Amino acid sequence: MKRPMILVSNDDGITAPGLSALAGALRRVGKVCVVAPDRERSAASHSLTLHKPLRVEKVGINMYAVDGTPTDCINLAINSILTGRPALVVSGINNGANLGDDVTYSGTVSAAMEGTLMSVPSIAVSLAVNGGRRMNFNEAAAFSVRLARYVLKKGLPRDTLLNVNVPSTKRIKGYRITSLGKRVYSDAIVEKVDPRGKRYYWIGGNELEWEGGKGTDFHAVSRGYISITPIHLDLTNYDSLKELSGITV
Amino acid sequence: MKRPMILVSNDDGITAPGLSALAGALRRVGKVCVVAPDRERSAASHSLTLHKPLRVEKVGINMYAVDGTPTDCINLAINSILTGRPALVVSGINNGANLGDDVTYSGTVSAAMEGTLMSVPSIAVSLAVNGGRRMNFNEAAAFSVRLARYVLKKGLPRDTLLNVNVPSTKRIKGYRITSLGKRVYSDAIVEKVDPRGKRYYWIGGNELEWEGGKGTDFHAVSRGYISITPIHLDLTNYDSLKELSGITV
Repeated sequence: MKRPMILVSNDDGITAPGLSALAGALRRVGKVCVVAPDRERSAASHSLTLHKPLRVEKVGINMYAVDGTPTDCINLAINSILTGRPALVVSGINNGANLGDDVTYSGTVSAAMEGTLMSVPSIAVSLAVNGGRRMNFNEAAAFSVRLARYVLKKGLPRDTLLNVNVPSTKRIKGYRITSLGKRVYSDAIVEKVDPRGKRYYWIGGNELEWEGGKGTDFHAVSRGYISITPIHLDLTNYDSLKELSGITV
Repeated sequence: MKRPMILVSNDDGITAPGLSALAGALRRVGKVCVVAPDRERSAASHSLTLHKPLRVEKVGINMYAVDGTPTDCINLAINSILTGRPALVVSGINNGANLGDDVTYSGTVSAAMEGTLMSVPSIAVSLAVNGGRRMNFNEAAAFSVRLARYVLKKGLPRDTLLNVNVPSTKRIKGYRITSLGKRVYSDAIVEKVDPRGKRYYWIGGNELEWEGGKGTDFHAVSRGYISITPIHLDLTNYDSLKELSGITV
């Protein structure tokens, strides 16, 4: 049987340890091709580079660095770099959680979004690093292998990707299918004056406050479970559709 | 009665004619404050600048330019620049449509996303420019005024923004509450060689192919109607949640 082609990317950049842990593990499942940003592109969200050319550098066997965003990488890989269509896109392993509303900012998730838009089943994997704890991608990589096998066999619902967050606790209790929780935002701008007397601002927001009871991704990860959230690319709020259809503006 | 504060932004940058048309029109409804990127930031998506400081320049009365993304602008405006909380965020008027899957890339929509995340009712407005036709923002600006009045009075469903696309036809037939259609993607990478003999890639994708019957945003705009789509920030696919809850990975 032909081994399925798996396209791997991330937003921490091509040298990130989470990427090599993921790519290494997935080689047990199929032929892995890595196309990833040449440097960190966290919080790049689902942005596409339209106004400048992109460079692609071959940096190893089936391994390419792109001077663009995670979305650019997936788009270029599928439309140009790869010979043949991948059977699966896996993005990660992100160094840090991508939970709740934060998925709308996440470069890791957006790579999986782009895969989904191009009709390739896609998974995003993040490690919910816990304070000063040393990163250990082994558990997350091993679970990615199991999930990749499942998705290659069973497929995914239409226009839907899986967003996976793995807790960095020593003993993982299992996995949960979850909904997105909600982060509680607070004023998080740092305002300072530079060495030349000019004011500058820095966006903060590393607090870990969140709301969301049982059933949310935050809840699962905080209890030591791997969280798997099905993310829908159709952002239409169908409930509001009915509500709004009667309005007069 | 105190006039409500309306925060206006965009992704085409602070000098864009669509922005001034929008801000000018909304002054009939409330106190307008403009916080927008200092240059074009199209397809910036919902990206947040975390790794460098941001500069804010006052460029007019209640008008600020930020060297960041649309998301940065809304975040900084609400957390730092504005005195008091806006009653409404309006982003636009974008020079070009933001329909279907493209909303996940759109800087215009992401500014409204950020407003929604910060619990301020938010609207994104785009002009679906039709080929070579000269842009006329008047109709879109007039409709934004009507919709702003409606939203200020009635509010919006939780975690939901309105994505508005105005056709650039001469005679607009009315408006429709729509769902997001689906763009049909095709290979759209241009591959060339630079003056120094080095290969480069340029992401294309300006085709206007789409699928989506009656009820979608593409359909409404193509028939000369203004499209209003309620966009939900909770990207969880609740239908798949049930489906997936029984799986064994």
